[in-house]
Amino acid sequence: MASLKVKFLATSIKMQMHLSVFLPEAAMRAPAGADGARLKVLWLLHGEGGDCSDWLRLSMVEHSAEAAGIALVMPNLDNAMYMDMAHGGYPYFTYLTQDLPLHIRYLVRVLSDRPEDNFVAGAGVGGYGAVKWMLRAPQAFGGCACFSGDVDIVAALRAREAEGGLGDDWAAAFGDADRIAGTDDDPMALARQLAAARTPVAPIRISCGEGEPGVARRRDAAAALRSLGLDVRFHEDREAQGWPLWDARVREFIRAAITPGVAAEG
Amino acid sequence: MASLKVKFLATSIKMQMHLSVFLPEAAMRAPAGADGARLKVLWLLHGEGGDCSDWLRLSMVEHSAEAAGIALVMPNLDNAMYMDMAHGGYPYFTYLTQDLPLHIRYLVRVLSDRPEDNFVAGAGVGGYGAVKWMLRAPQAFGGCACFSGDVDIVAALRAREAEGGLGDDWAAAFGDADRIAGTDDDPMALARQLAAARTPVAPIRISCGEGEPGVARRRDAAAALRSLGLDVRFHEDREAQGWPLWDARVREFIRAAITPGVAAEG
Amino acid sequence: MASLKVKFLATSIKMQMHLSVFLPEAAMRAPAGADGARLKVLWLLHGEGGDCSDWLRLSMVEHSAEAAGIALVMPNLDNAMYMDMAHGGYPYFTYLTQDLPLHIRYLVRVLSDRPEDNFVAGAGVGGYGAVKWMLRAPQAFGGCACFSGDVDIVAALRAREAEGGLGDDWAAAFGDADRIAGTDDDPMALARQLAAARTPVAPIRISCGEGEPGVARRRDAAAALRSLGLDVRFHEDREAQGWPLWDARVREFIRAAITPGVAAEG
Amino acid sequence: MASLKVKFLATSIKMQMHLSVFLPEAAMRAPAGADGARLKVLWLLHGEGGDCSDWLRLSMVEHSAEAAGIALVMPNLDNAMYMDMAHGGYPYFTYLTQDLPLHIRYLVRVLSDRPEDNFVAGAGVGGYGAVKWMLRAPQAFGGCACFSGDVDIVAALRAREAEGGLGDDWAAAFGDADRIAGTDDDPMALARQLAAARTPVAPIRISCGEGEPGVARRRDAAAALRSLGLDVRFHEDREAQGWPLWDARVREFIRAAITPGVAAEG
Repeated sequence: MASLKVKFLATSIKMQMHLSVFLPEAAMRAPAGADGARLKVLWLLHGEGGDCSDWLRLSMVEHSAEAAGIALVMPNLDNAMYMDMAHGGYPYFTYLTQDLPLHIRYLVRVLSDRPEDNFVAGAGVGGYGAVKWMLRAPQAFGGCACFSGDVDIVAALRAREAEGGLGDDWAAAFGDADRIAGTDDDPMALARQLAAARTPVAPIRISCGEGEPGVARRRDAAAALRSLGLDVRFHEDREAQGWPLWDARVREFIRAAITPGVAAEG
Repeated sequence: MASLKVKFLATSIKMQMHLSVFLPEAAMRAPAGADGARLKVLWLLHGEGGDCSDWLRLSMVEHSAEAAGIALVMPNLDNAMYMDMAHGGYPYFTYLTQDLPLHIRYLVRVLSDRPEDNFVAGAGVGGYGAVKWMLRAPQAFGGCACFSGDVDIVAALRAREAEGGLGDDWAAAFGDADRIAGTDDDPMALARQLAAARTPVAPIRISCGEGEPGVARRRDAAAALRSLGLDVRFHEDREAQGWPLWDARVREFIRAAITPGVAAEG
Repeated sequence: MASLKVKFLATSIKMQMHLSVFLPEAAMRAPAGADGARLKVLWLLHGEGGDCSDWLRLSMVEHSAEAAGIALVMPNLDNAMYMDMAHGGYPYFTYLTQDLPLHIRYLVRVLSDRPEDNFVAGAGVGGYGAVKWMLRAPQAFGGCACFSGDVDIVAALRAREAEGGLGDDWAAAFGDADRIAGTDDDPMALARQLAAARTPVAPIRISCGEGEPGVARRRDAAAALRSLGLDVRFHEDREAQGWPLWDARVREFIRAAITPGVAAEG
Repeated sequence: MASLKVKFLATSIKMQMHLSVFLPEAAMRAPAGADGARLKVLWLLHGEGGDCSDWLRLSMVEHSAEAAGIALVMPNLDNAMYMDMAHGGYPYFTYLTQDLPLHIRYLVRVLSDRPEDNFVAGAGVGGYGAVKWMLRAPQAFGGCACFSGDVDIVAALRAREAEGGLGDDWAAAFGDADRIAGTDDDPMALARQLAAARTPVAPIRISCGEGEPGVARRRDAAAALRSLGLDVRFHEDREAQGWPLWDARVREFIRAAITPGVAAEG
């Protein structure tokens, strides 16, 4: 295997941006490397208060990536909630979706850029980021997964507003619910547009724990997406939540969606 | 020597904050360690677009710190301009001046917390941060240095506003010049208050390159501080600017101000 | 939580040695810090071909350490097999057991040095290292655990010799089985001496997977240690092996042995 | 700019090997990236007791690399003295010269593999490594530089032996002087063979400080190489030694040899 910690000055956001990249042993074995020998990539997004080391530290996804022979790209998005921030002017989402893929694919030669080889998943607000990214660029991905995150971000924002306010960091990123509703930061609105235009959209997986706050909202969002005709698989776990759940689900995502034909690990 | 890369979830700012710490060989040699065996500390602040690795990578300060037997603490402040940000609600300066010293001194045992053992310096906007920090807490430092930064931040903001606007990142941090003038984010105002109250203030070093933009403003700020009775040493370099200048000046600061009695390095 | 990546020039081995330290949120919460507020420590040793990032990346031990409020210290021992190497003269084990605890406890203030607060565990050859360390210094630890490693290293070396030779790296570290048998690099010999001297020894946990090579040898070693009167708990897993097993066992070790009174995580 | 910290399990040496890579801003600017857009590379080798972070931390080479638009690849070779070790069986030099270039060029797409674009330099024993590498593979490099290192390693080993022995680490790497003399670990022998075969060899730069131990030996080695017809530039500095010298010389090497036509940095 190979592990890369990358830092670069991103032109969109004018900051040193960090990311972690995991490459399986398979990436090292073909150094004669015809350009055809590209790896499938899972873009993995952290949640609130996390960073680009979360997925490697807090789950066992590295084992699954090694067994499946796929690359993991784990960017650092600070607490920007996968937004071009409402206040402060930092275009984090533009960095994520434009600068990052362009540069990392240019620098790291083995990453495939074919849509069917690219997948995106995230936990918490990273799950919102993952679904939003795929719905903004449906031609670029083979699937996405949202673990304990809100695809219906507007409902989540309204719930927070009703419970006493967004808090500084959510307000800095989103402004407020009304500012987001119906825009391309609202995945439900994006889904409605794609459905209306009959644009093909790859499968969406939504997972959450039965006991976590917001479970009803996530169940509703899955149903609403399905009623639009999207391919949505919803999993509600009776036992696990938090990282034990996300660990299990990201590994299931790799096994079942990204490399369905590859033999199981261990 | 020892090098530490520290990350912790800062309660003030609710983000994973990073810093680098350099400890000289002297820090390793006294493991029996009476509490008296504490190291002098230079807090080193990066400039705009930089991060906590800048000073180690872009200057040769590590050699001087090793020779002088002092610790370096280099925090990451993103592009927050050493402000509790005007927009977005991220209290970076509170993190820097409250969370960070408390926690790093608690975790890393060898750092002295005596005022005469603590010094702060920075380059560019980090120089503004360094002087502001010392003027806010004059009882906590033995001296500070500002390299190519603006102690008169209000004048710097007005100059930017006159030249076409602050830009997103400066606006996010400062708001505008009027919002800062006369507050405790304005080092000139802090200096006037300290002078009026006859509070003792440790020496301030200000350095800049003759050819750099803003040199006149920095010259004026030094003169204004001096006219208030502060101990200000102003150095205007005829040849160097940027990192070659900052490298030379930080090493002079260590040699002349922090450890004046220690033999010169190799 | 806090994460530290530490590098220092170790005098015993004259190399830059790396380690990772995990500190739970509890370590940050008591910055007023009476000396009494020290953390329990689990020293976690990697296996062959691994490094100081293995335990954080490849298991979910960080969650358990956070929940239990304990520190993890994870040193890098290269491929030295927890030996002062037979060839090459690199005293890795001396570094591990002398330089490292001395310096890291001096630098990082919150680590307890009381025997009942210190535990050591390792996977593969790191399990050998863990048991050897505790049996060499029985007064320094509250318990140890060996996951899929050989406490009877002499038997393991003889098995390798019989199967076609030790290979370069094992030979560099150990020389050969005869060179180790009966010395203080032979945990079985150490155990016999401790038993003969009636020295108190803290509990030893040995775990392995039913299907892994060497399981019979590990079963025998556990029985032999027990027959000497040591407190040995042997776990042979019918399903898991490798990291899934080690992940489960290290978490059980923390829960059951290190912090038996602390409420379970999540 | 971009900074990469890479770790991979090297098959030759069966250990996790670390390296640092610096890429100039120019590497990021051409993401459309025809395969022709490759960067010149300077392979930079650390000295005894150092690691892959030395050159970035202890010199200001990053500024020169950015100004010149070249990449820096800085591997970690532990204390193996750029040898396939005499004892312990670790093939570090094979890793450096075979695994590393193959894999890093495969992974990081922007590094040129054309001989005229590749240069190697090192300080101390890294200078020995640099010259040895180029003389073993004269068709692969456009030039090399040795800073305060011994091209005549046999003379250096004999001097150490006469002064009381090699010490554990030198003995582990080299065995003894007789074991090296005349082999392909002896750069003087390699140079004689290349001269006899009239193989073209790129220029060699040798620098040392007038006051450093071994200066006479280094002067003699330069003269001997020159008498074989090699293009050797010898610089003996009257003032600087150690890192201030190596910093100045590596920057001169980049400016004068690697990118002679590129405008000087700021």
